[in-house]
Amino acid sequence: MHEIPKNHPRYKSLIFREKLVQGFRDGYVAIQGLIAHGRGECFDYLIGEKTLEPAIKSMKAAIAALLLAEKPVISVNGNIAALTPAEIVELADEVNAAIEVNLFYRTEDRAEKIAKILYEYGAKEVLGIKDATATIPELHSERRRVSPKGILKADVVLVPLEDGDRTEALRKLGKTVIAIDLNPLSRTARAANITIVDNVIRAMPKMIELAKEMKSLNKNELQSILNNYRNEEVLAEIINQIILRLTKLSSNVKTLVINP
Amino acid sequence: MHEIPKNHPRYKSLIFREKLVQGFRDGYVAIQGLIAHGRGECFDYLIGEKTLEPAIKSMKAAIAALLLAEKPVISVNGNIAALTPAEIVELADEVNAAIEVNLFYRTEDRAEKIAKILYEYGAKEVLGIKDATATIPELHSERRRVSPKGILKADVVLVPLEDGDRTEALRKLGKTVIAIDLNPLSRTARAANITIVDNVIRAMPKMIELAKEMKSLNKNELQSILNNYRNEEVLAEIINQIILRLTKLSSNVKTLVINP
Repeated sequence: MHEIPKNHPRYKSLIFREKLVQGFRDGYVAIQGLIAHGRGECFDYLIGEKTLEPAIKSMKAAIAALLLAEKPVISVNGNIAALTPAEIVELADEVNAAIEVNLFYRTEDRAEKIAKILYEYGAKEVLGIKDATATIPELHSERRRVSPKGILKADVVLVPLEDGDRTEALRKLGKTVIAIDLNPLSRTARAANITIVDNVIRAMPKMIELAKEMKSLNKNELQSILNNYRNEEVLAEIINQIILRLTKLSSNVKTLVINP
Repeated sequence: MHEIPKNHPRYKSLIFREKLVQGFRDGYVAIQGLIAHGRGECFDYLIGEKTLEPAIKSMKAAIAALLLAEKPVISVNGNIAALTPAEIVELADEVNAAIEVNLFYRTEDRAEKIAKILYEYGAKEVLGIKDATATIPELHSERRRVSPKGILKADVVLVPLEDGDRTEALRKLGKTVIAIDLNPLSRTARAANITIVDNVIRAMPKMIELAKEMKSLNKNELQSILNNYRNEEVLAEIINQIILRLTKLSSNVKTLVINP
């Protein structure tokens, strides 16, 4: 890894970029995952590289759905394994969710490497490796393969960094789908029941915090949070905040002035 | 390389993505460059994947500055060498600029590979290889190394695809900095004197065309173009065009409804 100067104003973003690059070198992040990460960075700029208030609403609804679920599953791909492996394991613990590996560009080698990382971070069980024997309809190739103990039976699935096709396929199976996606206009964002428009590096720790707080709520309180949630309203709010931010910025573009 | 169908709606974009991936496989594009390219693709989508009229203004000011310069230099990194090597050499010829390799993640191997490509495309001299012996302040590690014949002495530097730190450091040395950056909000965009918010694959050929036209202008005419240029106004115009486009897109957010 290259040394990133600690005083670089985008230090955190560059460190997470390095984590992804390391995941690619280690053979479990797909090269397409690197370009997808870049697209995410762009939308992170647009929301101001911070968690917006509507995203907190989505996270609360997401945690309510996960805590109320009979069989919640967190679906893991290469990018999320590289970026927040510890948080996946901790969140799964907090909400009693199973962890299942599902890859767009699946190879057994990549799946096994990701499982190994999750076990190193303390996962008790990682599904979707040897047991990806069931299939879900409307998806092509290897992505349709899921674990009969995991996604096949799940009622609520958290898919951080997922694509639109798969989100739609899971919805059509009647599952409640929670996505984390920085692009509020993406097919994933529009197909999920609950879309958290935030960077996973901020969203995952925040969701763990919320899970710890919300575990003390009773079922009625959780259900009420979930019932009052409107995904299309949240997406519209996010887009409006981006527009407001851009409007402010455009009325006041600060360029660098050098005094000679 | 993967075969890309010629009728694909994003054919051109995918071809250039493949060029970058090839540059990575050939060992001169940094892996972080792939992520940066993904970010660029996203901003290109936001401006509508076409050259906006304010960007033409920036290009004209840039060519005026390059033609008026005593010692113009074009700074080259892995991404720009992969995307528009012929155009770098041609533009340098048209405006009598030196070409210098400067890399965020510098290795001698990468620098030499990039020089080799530029020589193959007809460059007479490529600085910044064995001669990167001077240093510029306010930058860390290898990026501060520049050629005493090139960037160190330059009055105008064109930095396609540069980062904010380096742009600021060059400005603080009193240089006129021209950046090409698809993100109108980036530190680079705000730190440069002239920011061309456009995709390099469209901007570089257009700048060559403008250089050929504008060479016939006299110094007063060129100076007048430069004096009338306002970077902050151009950035604001671009941001406004993105707002308009997002507003159109957001007025029609359709979420997925599943009928049980």
